[in-house]
Amino acid sequence: MRIAELSRQAGVPVPTIKFYLREGLLPAGELSSPNQARYDEQHLRRLRLIRALVDTARLPIAAIRSVLKEIDEPDAELHHVLGRALADTLTPRGPADSAARRRVAEMVERRGWHASPDSPAAQTVAEVLTALEELGVGDLGEKLDEFAAAAEQIADIDLAAVNRRTTVEDVVYASVVGTILGDRLHTGLRRMAHENASASTFGFDPARHSEDPC
Amino acid sequence: MRIAELSRQAGVPVPTIKFYLREGLLPAGELSSPNQARYDEQHLRRLRLIRALVDTARLPIAAIRSVLKEIDEPDAELHHVLGRALADTLTPRGPADSAARRRVAEMVERRGWHASPDSPAAQTVAEVLTALEELGVGDLGEKLDEFAAAAEQIADIDLAAVNRRTTVEDVVYASVVGTILGDRLHTGLRRMAHENASASTFGFDPARHSEDPC
Repeated sequence: MRIAELSRQAGVPVPTIKFYLREGLLPAGELSSPNQARYDEQHLRRLRLIRALVDTARLPIAAIRSVLKEIDEPDAELHHVLGRALADTLTPRGPADSAARRRVAEMVERRGWHASPDSPAAQTVAEVLTALEELGVGDLGEKLDEFAAAAEQIADIDLAAVNRRTTVEDVVYASVVGTILGDRLHTGLRRMAHENASASTFGFDPARHSEDPC
Repeated sequence: MRIAELSRQAGVPVPTIKFYLREGLLPAGELSSPNQARYDEQHLRRLRLIRALVDTARLPIAAIRSVLKEIDEPDAELHHVLGRALADTLTPRGPADSAARRRVAEMVERRGWHASPDSPAAQTVAEVLTALEELGVGDLGEKLDEFAAAAEQIADIDLAAVNRRTTVEDVVYASVVGTILGDRLHTGLRRMAHENASASTFGFDPARHSEDPC
């Protein structure tokens, strides 16, 4: 298909597609004449992925480039490929004190996790524990093990779905997309579950929500 | 304390504190002379909260203003206050198709949640389901009910911690801080749990990680 058709099918304006081509996020089409290129289903799929990473995951272009690179060039050790692809999507932003870092390391130990206590993810958890403590809501941080158990359940569901893929490229693709979009899915579900728990605890008024208040 | 001491204790530069004062995020200190104001523990706590909302939650100033307003002026219906304060922290970014919206509404129905299927959170969930489907990893979205069950567990732990507070202000404060910082906490824990599940599934090599490879 031509660029106009690609634009129509993906719902992405032609100038934006040209920008992705220039940035090397989207591979060049096959030249059918010196001034015209043809695009196929793979371009369409890639374009949709880029839009999801831009719009829904809100990743910066540099992080998107690195995620796409991992999808395109997965090496033999899948575990490390996944780690690298996803590391860019989470960067610690604030300081973590040594007590918080120790608590994360101890949790990893207690749960027997094969997870580095120095990864960006572990540093992020320690950073949040530090902030919770400083802000006087450290008791939420004391629930770390219970929260970790919930994360374990979610990761098991994620991995079971990813594992149905038959090629390495597909496993990497599904892992990257599922992990990044999953962040927003779980944030949304947690807000909804809060709304539910809050309504039940702090005065939900069924009459207001019932279709037949009699 | 004077502004220099407030700056030292909070680890926030004086010009930044003055910016927060001008923006009305931090209440003015008590004037001890025409050119000098005094600040107290409440200013320090507020300043730490603002830094957490800026650095860790990365909220824009307008959203921070709205969160602080809810903490300062909680009205009688706590459930609605919380809903409003937290709604600003999650905004749907992309389109959700009607099938995805229906699936979210049906999940709410099945679980008996007191949660609006039109809230920003529910719209966000529908938006992610739509994106997963478009990107060919719709099978992850089929796990919605299992993911919702995990979110329910997390929300119950959150609410139990928040419920220990004795004043409305404290409940709102802990809810806002816990919800926003919790987003990053759970994202970090899920990444760590992925690392663990991925290591176990895709060739974790214990010899590399053992301190004594013999």
